[in-house]
Amino acid sequence: MPANAPTVSAADVRNAATLIRGSVIRTPLVYSPTFSRLAGAEIYMKLENLQVTGSFKIRGATFKIMSERDRIGSGGVVAASAGNHAQGVALAASRAGFRSTIVMPEWASISKQEATRGYGGEVVLAGRSIADSISVAQELAAKGRAFIHPYDDPAIIAGQGTTALEILEDLPDADLIAVPVGGGGLISGIAVAAKDARPDIRVVGVQAGACPSALMSLKAGRRVNVEPERSIADGITVKQLGEINFRIIQELIDEIVLVEEDRIAEAVLTLLERKKIFAEGAGAVPVAALLAGALPIRPGRKAVLVISGGNMDSPVLDRVLRKGLSRGGRIMRFSVCLEDVPGSLASLLSLIADAKANVLQIYHNRGGAEMSIHQSRVDLEIETRNFDHIAEVSEALKAAGYRFELRPPGPGTACAV
Amino acid sequence: MPANAPTVSAADVRNAATLIRGSVIRTPLVYSPTFSRLAGAEIYMKLENLQVTGSFKIRGATFKIMSERDRIGSGGVVAASAGNHAQGVALAASRAGFRSTIVMPEWASISKQEATRGYGGEVVLAGRSIADSISVAQELAAKGRAFIHPYDDPAIIAGQGTTALEILEDLPDADLIAVPVGGGGLISGIAVAAKDARPDIRVVGVQAGACPSALMSLKAGRRVNVEPERSIADGITVKQLGEINFRIIQELIDEIVLVEEDRIAEAVLTLLERKKIFAEGAGAVPVAALLAGALPIRPGRKAVLVISGGNMDSPVLDRVLRKGLSRGGRIMRFSVCLEDVPGSLASLLSLIADAKANVLQIYHNRGGAEMSIHQSRVDLEIETRNFDHIAEVSEALKAAGYRFELRPPGPGTACAV
Repeated sequence: MPANAPTVSAADVRNAATLIRGSVIRTPLVYSPTFSRLAGAEIYMKLENLQVTGSFKIRGATFKIMSERDRIGSGGVVAASAGNHAQGVALAASRAGFRSTIVMPEWASISKQEATRGYGGEVVLAGRSIADSISVAQELAAKGRAFIHPYDDPAIIAGQGTTALEILEDLPDADLIAVPVGGGGLISGIAVAAKDARPDIRVVGVQAGACPSALMSLKAGRRVNVEPERSIADGITVKQLGEINFRIIQELIDEIVLVEEDRIAEAVLTLLERKKIFAEGAGAVPVAALLAGALPIRPGRKAVLVISGGNMDSPVLDRVLRKGLSRGGRIMRFSVCLEDVPGSLASLLSLIADAKANVLQIYHNRGGAEMSIHQSRVDLEIETRNFDHIAEVSEALKAAGYRFELRPPGPGTACAV
Repeated sequence: MPANAPTVSAADVRNAATLIRGSVIRTPLVYSPTFSRLAGAEIYMKLENLQVTGSFKIRGATFKIMSERDRIGSGGVVAASAGNHAQGVALAASRAGFRSTIVMPEWASISKQEATRGYGGEVVLAGRSIADSISVAQELAAKGRAFIHPYDDPAIIAGQGTTALEILEDLPDADLIAVPVGGGGLISGIAVAAKDARPDIRVVGVQAGACPSALMSLKAGRRVNVEPERSIADGITVKQLGEINFRIIQELIDEIVLVEEDRIAEAVLTLLERKKIFAEGAGAVPVAALLAGALPIRPGRKAVLVISGGNMDSPVLDRVLRKGLSRGGRIMRFSVCLEDVPGSLASLLSLIADAKANVLQIYHNRGGAEMSIHQSRVDLEIETRNFDHIAEVSEALKAAGYRFELRPPGPGTACAV
């Protein structure tokens, strides 16, 4: 490390905690009996999804802007982000009385654009990738706006680290903290604060298999660039760790583990259905790692999973819900040919009701090209208990003489285009 | 009140707290900046949706079974419920080593049946209404099982009241607690404990307008029977208050307010999208009352909204999401006629992309009876920013010469039956 490289100390984190107190929510640490049973250890979750703006990002943004307010001019601040950092910066700036310009990539979801505007940010849509948006933001910064980096900044890191102080206040004898890793802002802040207070505590990073930038960087001994695949944990598909973040991670992090997409979807669904916790994909990766048995948790000890955020768009949520339901045999989709006579659909629906399944969606298609003129085709999506129940319904349909075809679980409705 | 009528004391609630400690989660009390700004007061939420089994019901069920275990025989316990009480009793019984039989009405959702089985309960589907299911459960009780009433029982009330002890530990100077009211178990327990500790605290009940049984009973001065309408707050559409509950409510509750269905859906959506809190309809009614300005909150004082549970079925959630999105202009649905030539659909989709709207669902219908042979109809559902954006997209379609028709926001997919 260069001798004069910027770094972050535990004192910086404590200073950040003092400054941002009252501007952020002291989020709860909640014990999970279910996950504890599963892991044979005491599992707690730090719910940063309940944080102001729905993620931990407001901590760093608030500290950065409050601690450097004298250096911010009338042009205000500028940042580039498709999601949580955008909202954190917009709100922190508004509260401090500054204008904020947030460059979002063209594909940024409408609801995240609206949330950012709602917090007082001026949204500029520019760039096909986050890297493009950052370039645009830096051009704007050159014209008199203060650039707020999402992770590669000592103040941002110190702000995110305040999460660890709260965890250790609530659970002084925590043995392990598992943290989602994208650019590395959250985990480096947590590691600095936690290891200072408790040198024996272990801090483990979790990444999506779709973008293992931290794991590969640690292996290579230098920051590497990863070309990320699509992931429902889009909040942490960051091509490259920050520079300061990489140094801290290299020095302090005990392990980085990877989780696959299906596990992340399962984690989101499990949190929602079983724990009533609404986490975005990136926020759920520590749970995914736990479910996959990938976290190095010692029997009987105490581990904290940081649920870093909850800003998942409704359409993505919808897909995750359906995917999860299909995997559990809780949705059955099939097409059936009906004679086109009065009452035929009613009979079919009675059979389904008798089998104690609930109709979710129906599409009735009369006279498609492939059908006889006396037939119509009905596409159904029904709610079932499990795969045995699907088999039962299939048997009942066969026994009643229906010609039907099971269809693969899709992301939503049949799209016949 | 009859001289020897059973009642509940604050000492009973404290006793319950001691006995159930470690078996239930000490749920967090979370401050809400958004709701506070809206109300001009400090608003906190008690997150019983994060409780074991996803609702407060486990508190009462655990205390009842633990405190009366000597009276429970080998037949175990029996209860009737379509939802949260079912899960609470099943889990509390399993933990105490008892069998449990849970009578659920025939229409009980599959996921709640499965959850109840998952907690070790034996599910019996019987009855068209909860009242029918209760009759069946009482028959089973007569055959050697201990009947666990969902609310009209001093031990159940004392157990639910432990919620108030935690609230006052975290926020000793709370001025008001707003509580969902169905049969009255939760609010009567909370009132007993809270008013004993802080006689000046105000406890306000919230009911769905679809089932104002507590409000009407208070007005009539006796328990009245209400024929409930359908409500997304199905967890509190209870025809009649319990007897013990009514007496406590009459003596201790300051006010009962009603909320309408649209407000409840809005509250569920607001909690999910803005606060990342997954509440069921019944659990969201205090928020609905706040959003409607119906809670008597004094400026600058501290109020607690009890989010009583989070067990909402995925299909209901799906409907609430779509309803909310439609109301906010965030979904646009329309049908458009296309010339059936190559590239016509691609052109349409380019136009939509240029207007910065995202396609959610498409149904392409070639050769319906009402169409010319050279046309096809496409039904689209697209994600938009707001109503202005819908108007923009409409203008763009018109300008490009498309014939299209806006369709009302539906509960899901087009169902052409």
